[in-house]
Amino acid sequence: MTVLRTASAHISVLALALAATGSARADEGMWTFDKVPVEAIRQAYGVVLDQVWLDAAQAAAVRLTNGCSGGIVSPEGLVATNAHCVADCAQALSDDGSDHVKDGVLTDGREDERKCAGLRAEVLLTITDVTDQVRAAVEGKGGRDFVQAREGALALAELAACGQDQSLRCQAISFFRGGQYKVYKYRRYDDVRLVFAPERASAAFGGDPDNYNFPRYALDAAFVRLYADGQPAATPGFLHLRTSAPVEGEPTFVVGNPGATDRQLTVSQLETQRDLVLPMQQLQRSELRGRLIQLRQQDDDHARAAAQGLAWVENGYKAGLGKQAALNDQAFLAAKRAAEDALRAKVAADPKLAAETGAAWDQIAEAQAQAAELYPAWRMLESGAGGGSDLFYYARLLVRAAQERTKPNASRLPEYADSRLPMIERRLADLPPVDPVLERVYLEHWLLKTREVLTVDAPQVRALLGHESPEAIAERLAESRLGDPAVREALWTGGLEAIEASDDPLIQFVRRVDPLARAARAAYEAEVSGPVDKAAEKIARARFAVLGDAVYPDATFSLRLSFGQVAGWREQGRAVAAVTTFAGFYDRITGAEPFAAAPRWLDAKDDLKSGTVFDFVSTNDIIGGNSGSPVLDAKGRMLGLAFDGNIHSLGGAYGYDGTKNRTVSVSSAAIVEALTKVYDRTALVRELTGP
Amino acid sequence: MTVLRTASAHISVLALALAATGSARADEGMWTFDKVPVEAIRQAYGVVLDQVWLDAAQAAAVRLTNGCSGGIVSPEGLVATNAHCVADCAQALSDDGSDHVKDGVLTDGREDERKCAGLRAEVLLTITDVTDQVRAAVEGKGGRDFVQAREGALALAELAACGQDQSLRCQAISFFRGGQYKVYKYRRYDDVRLVFAPERASAAFGGDPDNYNFPRYALDAAFVRLYADGQPAATPGFLHLRTSAPVEGEPTFVVGNPGATDRQLTVSQLETQRDLVLPMQQLQRSELRGRLIQLRQQDDDHARAAAQGLAWVENGYKAGLGKQAALNDQAFLAAKRAAEDALRAKVAADPKLAAETGAAWDQIAEAQAQAAELYPAWRMLESGAGGGSDLFYYARLLVRAAQERTKPNASRLPEYADSRLPMIERRLADLPPVDPVLERVYLEHWLLKTREVLTVDAPQVRALLGHESPEAIAERLAESRLGDPAVREALWTGGLEAIEASDDPLIQFVRRVDPLARAARAAYEAEVSGPVDKAAEKIARARFAVLGDAVYPDATFSLRLSFGQVAGWREQGRAVAAVTTFAGFYDRITGAEPFAAAPRWLDAKDDLKSGTVFDFVSTNDIIGGNSGSPVLDAKGRMLGLAFDGNIHSLGGAYGYDGTKNRTVSVSSAAIVEALTKVYDRTALVRELTGP
Repeated sequence: MTVLRTASAHISVLALALAATGSARADEGMWTFDKVPVEAIRQAYGVVLDQVWLDAAQAAAVRLTNGCSGGIVSPEGLVATNAHCVADCAQALSDDGSDHVKDGVLTDGREDERKCAGLRAEVLLTITDVTDQVRAAVEGKGGRDFVQAREGALALAELAACGQDQSLRCQAISFFRGGQYKVYKYRRYDDVRLVFAPERASAAFGGDPDNYNFPRYALDAAFVRLYADGQPAATPGFLHLRTSAPVEGEPTFVVGNPGATDRQLTVSQLETQRDLVLPMQQLQRSELRGRLIQLRQQDDDHARAAAQGLAWVENGYKAGLGKQAALNDQAFLAAKRAAEDALRAKVAADPKLAAETGAAWDQIAEAQAQAAELYPAWRMLESGAGGGSDLFYYARLLVRAAQERTKPNASRLPEYADSRLPMIERRLADLPPVDPVLERVYLEHWLLKTREVLTVDAPQVRALLGHESPEAIAERLAESRLGDPAVREALWTGGLEAIEASDDPLIQFVRRVDPLARAARAAYEAEVSGPVDKAAEKIARARFAVLGDAVYPDATFSLRLSFGQVAGWREQGRAVAAVTTFAGFYDRITGAEPFAAAPRWLDAKDDLKSGTVFDFVSTNDIIGGNSGSPVLDAKGRMLGLAFDGNIHSLGGAYGYDGTKNRTVSVSSAAIVEALTKVYDRTALVRELTGP
Repeated sequence: MTVLRTASAHISVLALALAATGSARADEGMWTFDKVPVEAIRQAYGVVLDQVWLDAAQAAAVRLTNGCSGGIVSPEGLVATNAHCVADCAQALSDDGSDHVKDGVLTDGREDERKCAGLRAEVLLTITDVTDQVRAAVEGKGGRDFVQAREGALALAELAACGQDQSLRCQAISFFRGGQYKVYKYRRYDDVRLVFAPERASAAFGGDPDNYNFPRYALDAAFVRLYADGQPAATPGFLHLRTSAPVEGEPTFVVGNPGATDRQLTVSQLETQRDLVLPMQQLQRSELRGRLIQLRQQDDDHARAAAQGLAWVENGYKAGLGKQAALNDQAFLAAKRAAEDALRAKVAADPKLAAETGAAWDQIAEAQAQAAELYPAWRMLESGAGGGSDLFYYARLLVRAAQERTKPNASRLPEYADSRLPMIERRLADLPPVDPVLERVYLEHWLLKTREVLTVDAPQVRALLGHESPEAIAERLAESRLGDPAVREALWTGGLEAIEASDDPLIQFVRRVDPLARAARAAYEAEVSGPVDKAAEKIARARFAVLGDAVYPDATFSLRLSFGQVAGWREQGRAVAAVTTFAGFYDRITGAEPFAAAPRWLDAKDDLKSGTVFDFVSTNDIIGGNSGSPVLDAKGRMLGLAFDGNIHSLGGAYGYDGTKNRTVSVSSAAIVEALTKVYDRTALVRELTGP
């Protein structure tokens, strides 16, 4: 299941990480590698993470551009990650005669390893603080100018750090909601090839019903290999596997890229999430989910694509359920309010801070009233436009890039600054296949929901639809030829002239309606995100002043370390054990989807050690994006791969509760035992475990 | 659109009607005919509703058993109602060669009028108070015993009032959440035939996007005829039509059967609605909606059935949106809390009342904590079991009736008391066709959602599914033969022996799983609805003691009168006019669904008076169930038919806001003009308007 892959390409501007109490609870935190709380870890677990340990972990930590994490596990570029992180790749490598998501991928040597179109890997090299230059750029600016100036400064900082070196990627990241800005420099791998993925019945055993639940029995593990210049990349910094079982109470360290958390939203922002954002998202997801369930059943030709889309939607849906549950919990919100009140009291008590920052919370609250007005149009026309359609994504990227490239760098939408164009060009060159039936469903759903949310009589809806029905428009747009990389390349290269001459229906549609989206965005940035970001930055500074900076920032799909221990929890008065075994897996099989075992697992039953720990839970503080993160033991050996959180971990978007939040991982022991006895991957096992 | 048809067959136990301030705001209230506030109406509008006026209105008011209302409009049994109220009938009368929902029904004389299978009409004759005998029956009882004793007493009261006379129906109704119990005696019409319905493009012009919105341009009107002994029923009490236009500010009286409101729920109950009940309902509806949208598009053979199901689901979905919006409005809930606090303060100030009633609110709040635990299983296994499947409904009715009939009357589930068996027998004899593809979708959706809500490891889910998948079970169950009335009759007649011998897959399934449902119900009644009802009855008594009884009870799908006036409202700073015209209709046509006009309307454009008022809004306080209610003028003439409310009216489930809540009606003027010039129904127009 696509369980911990980061749900959104739009990573929101970031929030301060800690409650106003000023100290993290045990095991809480997603710590950046330039500020790991080694002393707290030593006190809690008696483990000293020295620089050698940390450098080794960082060198082996991989960020995948599809929103996952991974760990390098051999000197020849082998990377362990989750099976659900390579499902898109397995799908793209399938054809009429093969279904690699359903049947898995078992290569028999390097020559069998095929490239995952569009999948890139990044390994963090350095972190550079650029806070001062960004502060200077936004000085005195407000509203949309503030956003524009900040984004411009960040784009410049990226360019300065990486230059034109195509083997690197530099990304400027805002931490602590503007409290700090840093450039992360990565080594880039554009050639990632699939080595091993189990069949879906094993990778996603339990399916959506078991997703975010535990006990669990999934082999959600896969291997890819990094290539450079057509050869396996040399990766001297790699993780050793530990194949002995995880032990209850032993310390665990998750190294990966949590996508986004909202722990430092103010209470007024949380209420907007609870009453406006989450309900709208969830209702739209549910309807789309229903469409994909029905499509999968009725249309054999598109069942595979529908199933992939469905996994993505169902994962987001369940994550939303968990988030909504946290915010509907009156005790949870009361604790948030108390923490906010405490910080505000400290700010109010300091005349200088009060003058600078005192109004910030109210400014954010006022912007929430604007959000109620402006969020729906911003969501439907700008941030969520296209409803998941890849064709729409390409069309907008091409149209906007062509328009923006005619402007001076500083006047562009920030994501089209010169420093960011190479990334766009690479995205446009990606090869993932587009399923026109699914595209039509996404586009139609989007147009229907836009009409519903904004209502028929809204000028934007009239302009969007004209005298056509959403159904007719979607049918027409799905005939776009933008699924062909060559067509995209021609339009990219041809620039504005080619775009304006294009008869592609989707290019023409986006050209016509994009002004609506730009207007919705401008209004939202001027009235909501601009004022909020500016006020949040003030709160961030005040927080540093009051609490110091021994706190962790909200997740930003950047490398983090989380510490914790192998531990179960109590659920409705009943203990949930920390580990499951192969024996439990065989007990759970019903023979019916999604509890049907793959035939090879049934065949191998007697050969497998039945007591092998299959999956396990630990107290590590993670979130979507951590999928495929190596879970390390005290010695830095890979004990397993994180692939999920329990249902309580979803509220982790807003706050961590160590009594209940749990990370769900598949053990290295299970991976190696299965590779050996179920999949007969002798060479792969040898590469993993050494001679 | 199925806009004001009462959404639920399960009409909840009722709530006290007025805020603790003790006086209704202008135009608020759904008044029973034994307590119309004639003096308040005279003061507000200068209109005196004397007993002659009220008796005439009551005699012409029709309750349709499919959850709609109507008005008798000729001495020969002609009844005006909404087109969406006869859509099921039009669908059932369609065949491979005809689609009467799409194309409408235009009969050419009595011999063309065909029976609507399963549709019955009821006209209220008398109201009898039975509060004392019910009180005596429940004296000293609590929990499930309380529910059982109350329902038993109500069943007895029905039997006493109607005896075995099959031309009558008696229904015991609880008002004011147990504050009063009354038996409503109706004249029954089991033979209702379809006379006229416009094509869908006219009846539902604007479709789901316009549903609950205004301006509006829908001819949501239809006619049926009551038959008795195979002849048109003699109905000397009928309404005259007024074909001059509604005038802004003129008084209007809606006479019909609002289905259910929850205005007297306590704040803790409203929070349960907001955080638990509505979100679960809405998410499940959304997913089902998506399935039906996709089914309609992909499967021509079942598109018609899917469209009908979809209209039902979309209507419930939008109603849920409006209700959720009201409860998410912090000011709305604060006003509810203030009213509750005021009543509690008055109760606390009176030692006797305080002793009897003081704890009632806390008892209800405590039951809400139980609801969080018990509601999901009660909803999925009992109240919402089958997910809308007619086959499941039949199967459960047959299995339970067979089981209950072997018990003494007093020990049965109350709905299977002897007095209620004839109604069940009639329901089982109904002829509406069952679409097996749609049935399978409903059943599968229900089983999937049950597994999701209760989780895989719940004992109830294990028992429900066994080792089968929801998909496989639904496929099997949809092959049930219970769609055939003869099969149902045989099982009904054969009793428990026939049920136990049946090899019908759905009968066998219900036999196996019904103990789960009964257990969920028993737990819910013991811990939630029993304690809540008992406490609510105490609050009702206290409220009468404090406020007197010049208040209206929550809606109960029983006859009510609402007063108000023709009036627009202000929406986001802009005035919404009170009426629309034919000219506006022609302006709104786009040619694409759902804004495509029927060809005959395009042909008739030049003949029609373009200034004719088409639809109009008034301040009347209505809710689902009022669909098809006649809207009367001061002289008791029918000015139009209510068919919808605006978006603000949906919050009317919890409270009425006279500045925004509006009833949407189609004018008699538009109906007669269209019948004359678009549909050429000379005889029908003559019957309606007299010679």
